Amino acid sequence: MEQVSVNRAFGGEQGVYRHASTATGTDMVFSVFVPPHEPGAKLPVLWYLSGLTCTHANVTEKGEFRRLCAELGLIFVAPDTSPRGPDVPDDAEGAYDFGLGAGFYVDADQPPFDKNYRMWSYVTEELPALIASHFPVDHTRQSIMGHSMGGHGALTVALRHPERFKSVSAFAPIVAPSQVPWGEKALSGYLGSDRAAWRKHDAVALIQDGARVPAMLVDQGAADPFLEKELRPELLREACDAVGIDLTLNLREGYDHSYYFISTFMDDHLRWHAERLNFLHS
Amino acid sequence: MEQVSVNRAFGGEQGVYRHASTATGTDMVFSVFVPPHEPGAKLPVLWYLSGLTCTHANVTEKGEFRRLCAELGLIFVAPDTSPRGPDVPDDAEGAYDFGLGAGFYVDADQPPFDKNYRMWSYVTEELPALIASHFPVDHTRQSIMGHSMGGHGALTVALRHPERFKSVSAFAPIVAPSQVPWGEKALSGYLGSDRAAWRKHDAVALIQDGARVPAMLVDQGAADPFLEKELRPELLREACDAVGIDLTLNLREGYDHSYYFISTFMDDHLRWHAERLNFLHS
Repeated sequence: MEQVSVNRAFGGEQGVYRHASTATGTDMVFSVFVPPHEPGAKLPVLWYLSGLTCTHANVTEKGEFRRLCAELGLIFVAPDTSPRGPDVPDDAEGAYDFGLGAGFYVDADQPPFDKNYRMWSYVTEELPALIASHFPVDHTRQSIMGHSMGGHGALTVALRHPERFKSVSAFAPIVAPSQVPWGEKALSGYLGSDRAAWRKHDAVALIQDGARVPAMLVDQGAADPFLEKELRPELLREACDAVGIDLTLNLREGYDHSYYFISTFMDDHLRWHAERLNFLHS
Repeated sequence: MEQVSVNRAFGGEQGVYRHASTATGTDMVFSVFVPPHEPGAKLPVLWYLSGLTCTHANVTEKGEFRRLCAELGLIFVAPDTSPRGPDVPDDAEGAYDFGLGAGFYVDADQPPFDKNYRMWSYVTEELPALIASHFPVDHTRQSIMGHSMGGHGALTVALRHPERFKSVSAFAPIVAPSQVPWGEKALSGYLGSDRAAWRKHDAVALIQDGARVPAMLVDQGAADPFLEKELRPELLREACDAVGIDLTLNLREGYDHSYYFISTFMDDHLRWHAERLNFLHS
């Protein structure tokens, strides 16, 4: 693991790192904020999965999470959204919603994407092991959040690993990729045309199929241009209500899909996770 | 004035605007955050002048000022750092420290720069008038701050307009451009070789020549790579001490010159200005 940069911020350290990933077969870059802490302390970790077109840098620069992570003592990890490099296959037309910057947190099994697009393994196995070996992480206290495509990632990862994550939240998540254009394109491209194989990468379908978490926090901008066609939080509302998952779904008047929206409500999400990381510790 | 973008954030509006500037003879872009407020209210305004290579966008995206500006009720204005465009002359070698992105907040009188590089008039006259006519500003309550080259700008503007600004602060300012390489290059290029003409654009020289403000707040990273050669806060310390200006100069261990440093101490500066804007209102 190579340190790309490290900057002191809010009494802690904001680092950016690069490593050769076994999962993706490429170099991968990610960022980690480590808050100020006592020597030898092990800290809870909050995973943040980013949205279409993003790298680790978007939330690292614009997410406004460091002040409160420093106060709450949270490590904040932000992976990239896809493998990258000259040899990594991309969308045939170079569209933003498939291929580079659009890994959708699945392990592709369709050529030519199956070689590199293994973001599920990357964010659930390889990167957690790397983080655990290099940073002062208490692996019994992890939570996960994400934005848009990364909200989809956070919800599906949490639903399939309820033993690992104390809490899950999302900003403007894609809640039912099997039912919306972004998701149908990505899941068919990475996983093929058999829709049954998509269900374990669809939060609403996972809930319908029995996956459970005790609670979810979702913030959604009411002026988000992707709200009705791609995000459809009402489908998550229905799925959670049907089985008794405690979903807090906040529709925020006037807010869009940008980091201006995310940064506004970041503090709420960090406090929500910190409560569950610190007080629901089993 | 044309609206480039507007995003809801922290209950207010973060806008970016473009206008044809008389001062610079070019289009100029700037950003304004207007916090939530009662209809008809007039709000104090905080000016933020940016550093070398920056546009309005750096602080707008990375400055982490909106949360507290919303709470304190401060309008936050961020101009660009130079005229821009294909017809605007630049540094002969395209260096980052002169020409585009490096206007140094002076009115150039040396050809070919005298036509466009009139950032002093722009930030002290033209843009304030534009802001006053389009935003709910209480012009009797203004403060100013800046970073690096923009810290130089903030200090010199405040020292020459003590009647206008309730307070001034800076992150890692160039305090004595006449005595450091960045400043010597810029002031000679824009103002010519007569060093007497530089003194009104040099905070330390202005203080030595009688300019006064009641107090200054400066934060400086101790790990800033430009500290000893370009910034030299000890010169401001000496100048202020010699004449009784109340300078709070915080040397911050481990911090560099980046927005990771600025965002860490932004809250301190915002509160410092808000105290003087709200309680020292004449």
